[in-house]
Amino acid sequence: MTDEAFASSSDAFRHARPLRYLQHLTIGSFVLESGIVLPSVTIAYETYGTLTAACDNAVLVCHALSGDSHVARHNADDDPGWWEFMVGPGRYLDTQRWFVICANVLAGCRGSTGPNTINPQTGRPYGPDFPDITIGDIVETQRLLLDHLNIQRLAAVVGGSMGGMQAMLWAIRYPQRVAAAVLIATAHRLNAQALAFDIVARNAITSDPDFAGGAYYDRARGPETGLAIARMLGHITYLSRQSMHDKFESDRLRPRPVNTDFEAEFSVGSYLAYQGERFVERFDANTYLRLSRALDRFDLGADQQTLTAAFRAAQCRWLVVAFTSDWLFPIEQSRELVRALLAAGQCVSSCEIPTRAGHDAFLLPQDIDCYGPLLHAVISGGATSVPQQVDALGHGPESVFFYNRLDYERIAALIPASASVLDLGCGAGGLLARLRDRGHHRLVGVELDLRAVTTAVQRGLAVIHADIEAGLTQFTLRSFDVAVLSQTLQTIRNVESVLDEMLRVAETAIVSFPNAAHQRHRERFYESGRAPETTGLTRYRWYNTPDIRLITIPDFEDLCRLKGWCIRRRLCLSTETGKEVMDEPERWSDLAVYVLTV
Amino acid sequence: MTDEAFASSSDAFRHARPLRYLQHLTIGSFVLESGIVLPSVTIAYETYGTLTAACDNAVLVCHALSGDSHVARHNADDDPGWWEFMVGPGRYLDTQRWFVICANVLAGCRGSTGPNTINPQTGRPYGPDFPDITIGDIVETQRLLLDHLNIQRLAAVVGGSMGGMQAMLWAIRYPQRVAAAVLIATAHRLNAQALAFDIVARNAITSDPDFAGGAYYDRARGPETGLAIARMLGHITYLSRQSMHDKFESDRLRPRPVNTDFEAEFSVGSYLAYQGERFVERFDANTYLRLSRALDRFDLGADQQTLTAAFRAAQCRWLVVAFTSDWLFPIEQSRELVRALLAAGQCVSSCEIPTRAGHDAFLLPQDIDCYGPLLHAVISGGATSVPQQVDALGHGPESVFFYNRLDYERIAALIPASASVLDLGCGAGGLLARLRDRGHHRLVGVELDLRAVTTAVQRGLAVIHADIEAGLTQFTLRSFDVAVLSQTLQTIRNVESVLDEMLRVAETAIVSFPNAAHQRHRERFYESGRAPETTGLTRYRWYNTPDIRLITIPDFEDLCRLKGWCIRRRLCLSTETGKEVMDEPERWSDLAVYVLTV
Repeated sequence: MTDEAFASSSDAFRHARPLRYLQHLTIGSFVLESGIVLPSVTIAYETYGTLTAACDNAVLVCHALSGDSHVARHNADDDPGWWEFMVGPGRYLDTQRWFVICANVLAGCRGSTGPNTINPQTGRPYGPDFPDITIGDIVETQRLLLDHLNIQRLAAVVGGSMGGMQAMLWAIRYPQRVAAAVLIATAHRLNAQALAFDIVARNAITSDPDFAGGAYYDRARGPETGLAIARMLGHITYLSRQSMHDKFESDRLRPRPVNTDFEAEFSVGSYLAYQGERFVERFDANTYLRLSRALDRFDLGADQQTLTAAFRAAQCRWLVVAFTSDWLFPIEQSRELVRALLAAGQCVSSCEIPTRAGHDAFLLPQDIDCYGPLLHAVISGGATSVPQQVDALGHGPESVFFYNRLDYERIAALIPASASVLDLGCGAGGLLARLRDRGHHRLVGVELDLRAVTTAVQRGLAVIHADIEAGLTQFTLRSFDVAVLSQTLQTIRNVESVLDEMLRVAETAIVSFPNAAHQRHRERFYESGRAPETTGLTRYRWYNTPDIRLITIPDFEDLCRLKGWCIRRRLCLSTETGKEVMDEPERWSDLAVYVLTV
Repeated sequence: MTDEAFASSSDAFRHARPLRYLQHLTIGSFVLESGIVLPSVTIAYETYGTLTAACDNAVLVCHALSGDSHVARHNADDDPGWWEFMVGPGRYLDTQRWFVICANVLAGCRGSTGPNTINPQTGRPYGPDFPDITIGDIVETQRLLLDHLNIQRLAAVVGGSMGGMQAMLWAIRYPQRVAAAVLIATAHRLNAQALAFDIVARNAITSDPDFAGGAYYDRARGPETGLAIARMLGHITYLSRQSMHDKFESDRLRPRPVNTDFEAEFSVGSYLAYQGERFVERFDANTYLRLSRALDRFDLGADQQTLTAAFRAAQCRWLVVAFTSDWLFPIEQSRELVRALLAAGQCVSSCEIPTRAGHDAFLLPQDIDCYGPLLHAVISGGATSVPQQVDALGHGPESVFFYNRLDYERIAALIPASASVLDLGCGAGGLLARLRDRGHHRLVGVELDLRAVTTAVQRGLAVIHADIEAGLTQFTLRSFDVAVLSQTLQTIRNVESVLDEMLRVAETAIVSFPNAAHQRHRERFYESGRAPETTGLTRYRWYNTPDIRLITIPDFEDLCRLKGWCIRRRLCLSTETGKEVMDEPERWSDLAVYVLTV
C-alpha cells in the first residue's frame, strides 16, 4: 500500500502542537437543555478575516464530531485546518470578504469545556460527571459567542455532518440572526443504520475494562482499545465501498508496517489500526460518547409534517449539499430535508454531487469545485457574477436550451401575476429570472444539469438539483399555483406520470413541446423516410437525441381527454414568425403551449 | 418495537437442544492446506430424503459463517432449520426428489472438529492451538464425506455467502463431481469494505481481555463482550439500510426490554444487544475467528484474468443469485463472477433479485419465489415443465414479444451453423431454443425481465439477467461469433453504445428493427399528424411505448456509414407477406434485418 492511501480527512490533525490562534470565551453558569447547570463554560474558538464595522460579514462554521476550531491555517507557518481548501483568502469561503468563526463544541476535547476539563466544584476532571449535552446546547454556546463578538446577524451558518445539524438549529431557533444556512452531508436525524454503528462504537468504548465508567483520567490507561475500535468502525462509515476499493484493493495483502496490537494482515487492516491509534492520541473517549449521543438524539421529527413544522420559522436562504456515495448521511435523507424545507415554504437550493469519496467527501478537496460555487452563491445571496458565455436567457452553450426560446415570453404571459411557480427543467433559470423581474416571489426550479443549477443559483434563484423522471416527490400536494414544463416533455420516458405529478403539486400545469407533426417534418418523413428532428439541434441525430417522444398536437390532446385533464388554453406558435397559428395549427405550428388543470 | 422486529435469520437457532438427527463421520489424520496435520477430524452432518441406488440425486448444501448442518427440520416435531423454506418435501430443493446433505464446517462449533473440541494429543480443548483453516480445507472434508456416502457426483452444490465460496471451489476442484453450482449472495473474494468490517469484528474479540489469547475454555468467562460486539457489527452488515429503517424507524425510542449491559436506549440498540447476547450462547469466539479469517483469505484472483482462469476447469451449469440491497456481497461482485464465468466459457445463468432485505435475503423466505424456480430449474438441468401460457416461441402474454416473430426464422437462417450466439433481449428464449434445436452449443441470452429469464432457464437455456442499456460489461472482447438484437434497438436510449458493444463482444452483429418509415406510417403521419406506432402493440401509445427511437432504413444506414460498420447483408421484410421486399424497401418493408461487422 502506498503512503497516499493513508492520507485521510483526519490527517489535518497529525500535528499536535498547541493551536496558537485559539481564543477563549468564558461564560458563567450555563443551563443545559436538560436543566443541568454547568458552573462555568469556556468555549475555544478561532476567527479568520476582519469583521466589518457593520458586523454584517460573519460566517459561522460548525464542525463535525471529531473536528475542532482550527478550520484553516491563519498564515503560511500555521498548521493546516480541517477545511483548508474551503476557507481562506480567495477560497470559496473567502476570508478577505467574510469574517469566519469556528468554535470547538461544548463537551469537546479541543479547548472547550468538556469531560476532560476541570470541574470547578471538585478541582478534578469532570469525567463521568460531565452531563449529556445536545446539539441545541452547542448552538446556545455559539449564540453566546456571537453576542460576545457583537454579531447580531450571520451572513451564513455552514456545517457538514453534525455541523449541519447545528446549522439547521441556528436557522430554526434564530431566524432573525441567519441570512443563509448551508447543510452539507447531513440529515434531520440519523437513519437506523447509522444509529446502529454509533451504538456499536459506544458499546466498544463503554465495555472496555479501562473505561472504568468514564473515570479513567487518573489511571495509567484509558479505554484506548475501545476508542480505537470505535474510530475504526467510524472510519469505514466515512469512506465508501468504492473509495475503499480504490485505496486498498490493488495491494490487499501488502499492509504498511504499523506498530500495533490490532490485526494488520491486510492493507485495509493496517490502515484502520493506524487511524484508530492516531485518533486515541488526540481525542477523549468521554467526549466521543457525549458528542456521539448528542448526534444520535438530534431529531427534528419522525415524520414529514413535524419536520416541515420545524422548518417553518426559518427565514433564510438554504443550500443542501449531498454526495452520491455517502451512505452514512445518504442522499435520500438530503432529499427529505429538501422536501420538508420546500413544504415549509423555504427558499432552498440543493445539489447531489457525484463522487466516490463517501461521507468524507466534504472533508476532501476533490469535489469542492462542484459545490463550492453554489455555496459561494448562496452565501452571497445571488450577488455573484454570472459566467459570461450565456445567452440572453442565461443558457450557456452546454445547455440544450441555448437557442431562441419563444415560449418563455408566451409562457410568462400565461402566468397570473404573483403566482407561485415551479419550473421543471429550468435550465440556467431563464424563465424564472424573467418572472422574478416581474415581481413573483415564490419561484423554484428543478434541473438535472449541475452547471445549469449553479448558473441559476448564481443569478439568485432557488433550484433543486433533481431528475424529474424520478417523480416530484420533493414537492407536496398543491404547493405551487403553476408548474411549468417547457420544451422538456419530449425528452421524458414517463410522460404520464410527470404530467400527473405536475397536476398534483400545482393547480395549473403549463406544458410546451415542439410539434413533431409540423408540415416540414411530415413532408421530410413522407418523402425521405427520415425521422423528424423536432428541436432542430444540429448536434443530435435520431440515435442520440434527448427527444425520445414524438409529440404531436392531436396525440397530446388525445392523452388529455383520456386522463380527464382540462385544456384551459392552447397556444400554437410558429417559431419562424413568432406568432400564433390559427389555421390548421397541427400542421403549421411547430411549438405548442398548453395550460392544463385537473 | 414489535416482537416481529426481533425475528431474524438467526432465530432458527433459538432452540439449543441437541440436534437429534446429527450424524458423524470421523476421518483419521487430516492434512490442511497449510501443511499442518490434525490427528483426527470429525464432521457432523445431516441428510434429508433418500439417495437413489444410482447415487445420482445428491445435493450438497454449504452453510455460511454462523450456520450449521441443520438446514431444515426432519419432521414435524423437529426444530426448524436455517433454510426451512428452501429445503423439504415440495420445496424448491425438494427432499422427495433430492438427497440433501449439509455438514457443519471444519473449525465449526456445531458438532464438527473445531477449537472447542478435544485435542487428542493433549486431552484438552484445542483453543489457541487450533490452526487456521481455509475454504479449501472445508471442501476437502466435504469430499471425504461424499466418498464415505459413496456419492461420486453431485447433482448440485448450493451455498450462500461463505457457502457460495465452498460451492465455487467444489466446481473448480472437482469438475467431474459437480453437475450444477448455485452461488447465492457471494463473491470470489471479499471487497475491501466487507474485509474492514471483519477486521474490526476480530479486533473486538481479540482485544477483549477475557479472550486470553484464545485459551479461555477453562476460565470463568470467555470473550463474550468482544464476540457480542463482533456479532452486532455483523448483523448491521447482514441487513440493509432499508430493512433497518423498516424495522426500527417507527418506534426508534421504544426499545424492547432486554437484560443487557450494552446500550439499549434506541430500539435498534436493544435489537443489537439481543442478537449479540443470543449469539454468544450458541457460538464460539475461536470458531468465529477461524471462519472469519478463512472467509477473508478466500481469493480466486485479484484480476479478471486470474479469476477467469480459475473457473476454466469447471464443467457444470452455474446459477449466480444476487440481491439488490446486499451491500456486504454487492451485486457488482456477482456481476464480476458472471463476467469471469462467461469468459471461462461456462454455462451460466444469473438473476438480480430486487429486495430490501440486504445480505440476509437468502436466509429469509420473502424473496424465495423470485429465485427458487431458477434454482430448481438449474439443478434439474432444464428438465422442468415450462409454464403453459406461452406462444410457439416461448413468449407469454406478459412479454412484449408475444406476437408473430417473422424475424426469428430469418435471423436463424443468417447465423452460420454451430456459431456461438449471444441474444440480447432474448425474452423467454424463443430464438435461442430454435438455435439449440439446430445444434448450436454456445448460446447465451441477456434479458431484463425476470419472469422471461425464468422461463428461458426452465427451457434449459443460459440467461443473464441484465439491462443491455447499461453496457455489455459482462462479456469480453470477441467472446461470441454472433450477437443478436432482435426488435429491441428501437427501445434503447444509448443506440450507439449498444451497437458498439455488440461489435466488441461478437464478430458479427445481427440487428432487426421495425422500419418506422413504412408507407403506412408515412401516410398516417402525413395525413393525420399522429406519431407512427411501429410495433403495432395495441396497448401502447406514444406516451408509454417502450419504442423511444424511430428508426428508418436510411437513418440506420447513415449511422452505419458514420461509424464505419460494414453492412454484410440487409434483409427488408414485409410482415404481411412474410417475404423480402426488393423494390423501395425503405417505403414498403416494415421489418429490417442487418448483418454488421466492423
